[in-house]
Amino acid sequence: MGGWRDNLIDIEPYAPGEQIRVPGLIKLNTNENPFPPSPAAASAAGSFDAKSLMRYPDPDAGELVGILAAKAGVSEDMVVAGNGSDEILAFAFRAFFNSSRPVLFPDVTYSFYPVWCRLFGISYEEIPLRDDFHMYAADYERENGGVVIANPNAPTGIAEGLGFFRNLLDANPDSIVIVDEAYVDFGADSALTLIGEYDNLFVARTFSKSRSLAGLRLGFGYGHADLVVSVNAVKNSFNSYAVDSFAMAVGAEAARDDRYYRERTAELVRVRDSFTESMRGLGFIVYDSSANFVFVSHPGVDAGDMYGWLKGRDILVRWFDKPRIRDHLRITIGLAEEMDALFTAISTYMKEKNIR
Amino acid sequence: MGGWRDNLIDIEPYAPGEQIRVPGLIKLNTNENPFPPSPAAASAAGSFDAKSLMRYPDPDAGELVGILAAKAGVSEDMVVAGNGSDEILAFAFRAFFNSSRPVLFPDVTYSFYPVWCRLFGISYEEIPLRDDFHMYAADYERENGGVVIANPNAPTGIAEGLGFFRNLLDANPDSIVIVDEAYVDFGADSALTLIGEYDNLFVARTFSKSRSLAGLRLGFGYGHADLVVSVNAVKNSFNSYAVDSFAMAVGAEAARDDRYYRERTAELVRVRDSFTESMRGLGFIVYDSSANFVFVSHPGVDAGDMYGWLKGRDILVRWFDKPRIRDHLRITIGLAEEMDALFTAISTYMKEKNIR
Repeated sequence: MGGWRDNLIDIEPYAPGEQIRVPGLIKLNTNENPFPPSPAAASAAGSFDAKSLMRYPDPDAGELVGILAAKAGVSEDMVVAGNGSDEILAFAFRAFFNSSRPVLFPDVTYSFYPVWCRLFGISYEEIPLRDDFHMYAADYERENGGVVIANPNAPTGIAEGLGFFRNLLDANPDSIVIVDEAYVDFGADSALTLIGEYDNLFVARTFSKSRSLAGLRLGFGYGHADLVVSVNAVKNSFNSYAVDSFAMAVGAEAARDDRYYRERTAELVRVRDSFTESMRGLGFIVYDSSANFVFVSHPGVDAGDMYGWLKGRDILVRWFDKPRIRDHLRITIGLAEEMDALFTAISTYMKEKNIR
Repeated sequence: MGGWRDNLIDIEPYAPGEQIRVPGLIKLNTNENPFPPSPAAASAAGSFDAKSLMRYPDPDAGELVGILAAKAGVSEDMVVAGNGSDEILAFAFRAFFNSSRPVLFPDVTYSFYPVWCRLFGISYEEIPLRDDFHMYAADYERENGGVVIANPNAPTGIAEGLGFFRNLLDANPDSIVIVDEAYVDFGADSALTLIGEYDNLFVARTFSKSRSLAGLRLGFGYGHADLVVSVNAVKNSFNSYAVDSFAMAVGAEAARDDRYYRERTAELVRVRDSFTESMRGLGFIVYDSSANFVFVSHPGVDAGDMYGWLKGRDILVRWFDKPRIRDHLRITIGLAEEMDALFTAISTYMKEKNIR
């Protein structure tokens, strides 16, 4: 080596789920929504004026921010928009976590959190989930430079109630607490209702999951105006025009169209709960999920082997080869017929391998 | 203060040009292209399938990268796509500049460079442009952790030739040299032709300027595969899905449609050169521009005053209240009729103020 190569960053990036394009593939590995975006969002896409692309977008995404703020019942200076909630979270980590004390998050959670910490040189400590894979506020009563909680958590799908968040916030008045609510619409209570009470609470949301817009890249952050100013300072030190004009136009309609999304979400929850029962009937342990995926294991099943076997049959689920969870699979809830096909395949696997 | 507010980042962000939406405004302040995107790009936008937004985009933007690589005559592992070239540059700064030695760039250049350095804790040194506002490779023959050059430079519009870049690269074999070619299509020679010769050269390009797609947010980086691996490691440590599906679809068509853009660029260059001559006729000093803007001054004109006067008449240009350049205005080249209106207004200003 030597020379300029010595100055290259040495970092282990996040590994997203495989984005394989195979005709007929049943893709249940990246928690995408199986329903299309709303007709109003599609109509906004269809009537988008391509000529407008010659101009830069509004760097503050003012229209979108206004709609989201009104829906949340907060002022506009309490909302920020970004190129997906991953970007919002990245900005927030850089904006909020500038002490030498470690940031706390669970040992089993969204695996991007330690990646952002390493990228920005933030020290962190992973707090083990209890054996029931739940979080306990008492475990976060220790010196820290911030706390990050996904609710519902991933990949477990387990949600904590608002009581947990009140206890957590009460115990950490001098720390900023980020709640990552990517999956909240599928069954958890949102910490947004606490945002007027706790100045140190920042909530991240995405349009990728319940709004069926993963391809659009649109995420939001909510918090006290001082927190939003700080996130915007990072955004404007990184990329002033984070949200493109098309995402703003389509996102505005998607934001307004609550009824469509509530109906699709209810349908997805029915499929999830029915699939959960079926899997339990096969002897699987399935955690009660408040998300659009389930986390399953079986005493007789090698999860890595089943993952590979399903992949060989064009059914893609997610297996994390990591401590504590390598005997589990995370399965995104798709359409009813996709879940039926998966269940049939798993039943076949169990028979072939003589597992009962 | 005290408590969590102590941990907020303290940083001075980049200030983008004003994005004012006023009917009839002549907007010549952010170097946008006055011509719309190509018919092929508009058609791709019109036929975009909104349903596809339910899926995540290809995190590697493979199709786009393939098209760009083929056009540049390089392999696909030498190209990376991002959410605008600002994002590409931000990733590259973080990826490449990890020594304790200062990164070098001119004192008068794109004002985002020092902002990225501060965001990432990179030390830097500003090398004064010579009095003719040109760069001299000899000025960059000093210990450094990297070099960043905009070519053509902004806000001057002045381009350096390939001889300058050869000298710069020969003098700095152990440093990575970033050439930011946002404006290259308007009249400069691209350093892309040197990329096979110099492993330590990284070139950033954007679709915001010559491709009329500022609202789409699409930028690219080109360099040795080791450089691209490093930029991708940062991207995947920050936001895996940086480029959305719509930008990929529209960008692919825009990338293919060279002829349309060459014709519009030629038209813009004619307007620029004609406006330059007219302004010189009024006694303005106008640097020879290789960009889609001109940088002007006049011994009798207070640039800040003229900026405000024009703004009061709904003509927006850019004034930087900064050392060495506060007596200049940067004027984006718009449509011929917009430049005529601006010229008439400036002539009126000169008469009103009795400047000759």
